[in-house]
Amino acid sequence: MKIGLDLMGGDFAPSEAIEGIQQYFSEGGKAHLVLLGDEGRLQPLLSKYSFASEKFTVVHAPEVIDFHDSPTRALKEKPRSSISIGFHLLATGKTDAFISAGNTGAMLVGSLYALKPIEGVLRPTISTIIPKENGGTGLLLDVGLNSDCKPEQLNQFAIMGSVYAQNILGIENPRVALLNIGEEEGKGNLLAQATYPLLKENKHINFVGNVEGRDLLLDNADVMVCDGFTGNVILKLAESLFEVTHKKQIHHEYFERFNFENYGGTPVLGISKPVIIGHGISKGKAFKNMIALAEKMIEKDVMQKLQAELVS
Amino acid sequence: MKIGLDLMGGDFAPSEAIEGIQQYFSEGGKAHLVLLGDEGRLQPLLSKYSFASEKFTVVHAPEVIDFHDSPTRALKEKPRSSISIGFHLLATGKTDAFISAGNTGAMLVGSLYALKPIEGVLRPTISTIIPKENGGTGLLLDVGLNSDCKPEQLNQFAIMGSVYAQNILGIENPRVALLNIGEEEGKGNLLAQATYPLLKENKHINFVGNVEGRDLLLDNADVMVCDGFTGNVILKLAESLFEVTHKKQIHHEYFERFNFENYGGTPVLGISKPVIIGHGISKGKAFKNMIALAEKMIEKDVMQKLQAELVS
Repeated sequence: MKIGLDLMGGDFAPSEAIEGIQQYFSEGGKAHLVLLGDEGRLQPLLSKYSFASEKFTVVHAPEVIDFHDSPTRALKEKPRSSISIGFHLLATGKTDAFISAGNTGAMLVGSLYALKPIEGVLRPTISTIIPKENGGTGLLLDVGLNSDCKPEQLNQFAIMGSVYAQNILGIENPRVALLNIGEEEGKGNLLAQATYPLLKENKHINFVGNVEGRDLLLDNADVMVCDGFTGNVILKLAESLFEVTHKKQIHHEYFERFNFENYGGTPVLGISKPVIIGHGISKGKAFKNMIALAEKMIEKDVMQKLQAELVS
Repeated sequence: MKIGLDLMGGDFAPSEAIEGIQQYFSEGGKAHLVLLGDEGRLQPLLSKYSFASEKFTVVHAPEVIDFHDSPTRALKEKPRSSISIGFHLLATGKTDAFISAGNTGAMLVGSLYALKPIEGVLRPTISTIIPKENGGTGLLLDVGLNSDCKPEQLNQFAIMGSVYAQNILGIENPRVALLNIGEEEGKGNLLAQATYPLLKENKHINFVGNVEGRDLLLDNADVMVCDGFTGNVILKLAESLFEVTHKKQIHHEYFERFNFENYGGTPVLGISKPVIIGHGISKGKAFKNMIALAEKMIEKDVMQKLQAELVS
């Protein structure tokens, strides 16, 4: 199992990525890591750690796609960047997953165009973990890859979220709900009204009906489906809750769970291989969790299971 | 100044509504209250309080529109209900505002059909207060009256929110932002992309650009405009924050500010007279604040000011 890791991506690259590798290995991580970045810069840093040489390979990638780079142009014009090479290795089977906390747009464009979508997938999607107030874990998707959605897309997100919740979050028979602005069938905007009947008929999911904004933090559903505009607003509001409570010194176990570092990064679902996109401000713990997530996704063969549910 | 108040609306009717009246008068409230409800039931309750007789009038309304009633049908089939009579009194100039914590749908339908919209208004709107983490107060709209919106409607919501923030929240030259999923112009779903240029050109508002979900609790804008689907999800999520923190015994001044009772109810903007819709679970404090809000809206002549901005 080989996992590609961009060491040049994120505000604290490469040191925090290397810190994450250290944590991953020390916790018994099994994957071989393919580290992408400027070799001259990386080797002195890596040599400070005592990683076993069979545990990793460094692949020289002298270019960096910055945060302000235009994603599509940068991928073309910087073919020797860590992100470009990372996708190339993944697409050609040299690695089994790819992780970066670099330019989010470039990671999304790369996911959509360097890799194949799973057969039958209308649109890949990204999700976020929502900490439930009772200690449980919910999955919300889409959270920004698809700002305008069609009902058929939401119907597929429901399947993808369900497979992910089952395999990665360990939730048996996940309850899938439509995020809406009313409880009964027929409520909501045109998209929600048209999506409800599709979800109701969908035999691949355990559909439990609508949930509302007030249910997001409650344990009324495991997988919550919405368009990427609404989902992205919620994602960023949830992330800010962690920041605001910290700033106000409201220290409580519940709000600690809104720290994205616990979950690492966002996997792109609906493409042929695992790609995990990290936050720009990722530190060691976030990198460690992203590598562990990639390992789990490969181990559980989540992409294959997604395909099986989507085409059957 | 006469304010109509439905005493039969809400889970704790009529006792908590009467408790609210008591608080309103004891804090020097100046309006004459027109109390709607079953006279035989109300008089014994009212007689327990020592309200000065010139301070209020009871109007007999023997029917009640329940929470499970279909709004449009109930307004037709229960003409002697407190909500039907309340709108009739308001529409015919017998009162200057109307408040109810009863059936929300019936209040919205009544607002749209018993009253005239302000000339030129495409769609009336409802808003919510968002407590900013620095102590300030933001206004978010629409929060559910318009689940699918057109750019021109959002552009009007921006004007209505701006007038409301200035006159009722006391914010000088309110900063108006578009709630979006990216910072730069051109980001977002089709609606946001099409709305941005309208807001930018709108001379009636102080447009400051896009804000994201992470800015909702920060002091980056005073008025935030979005479609009613997104807004309603945020509204209900924000309300649940108060409940979740209480349940977890996280007592902090900031989360106390998410208690809707502080703000009372939601005014319907864009119609000819002030209508305020209360939460079903409103208690005395919420009723008191709704009456005080109605008084302020009449005093400041907010509807007239809205009209002036919208037609000029």
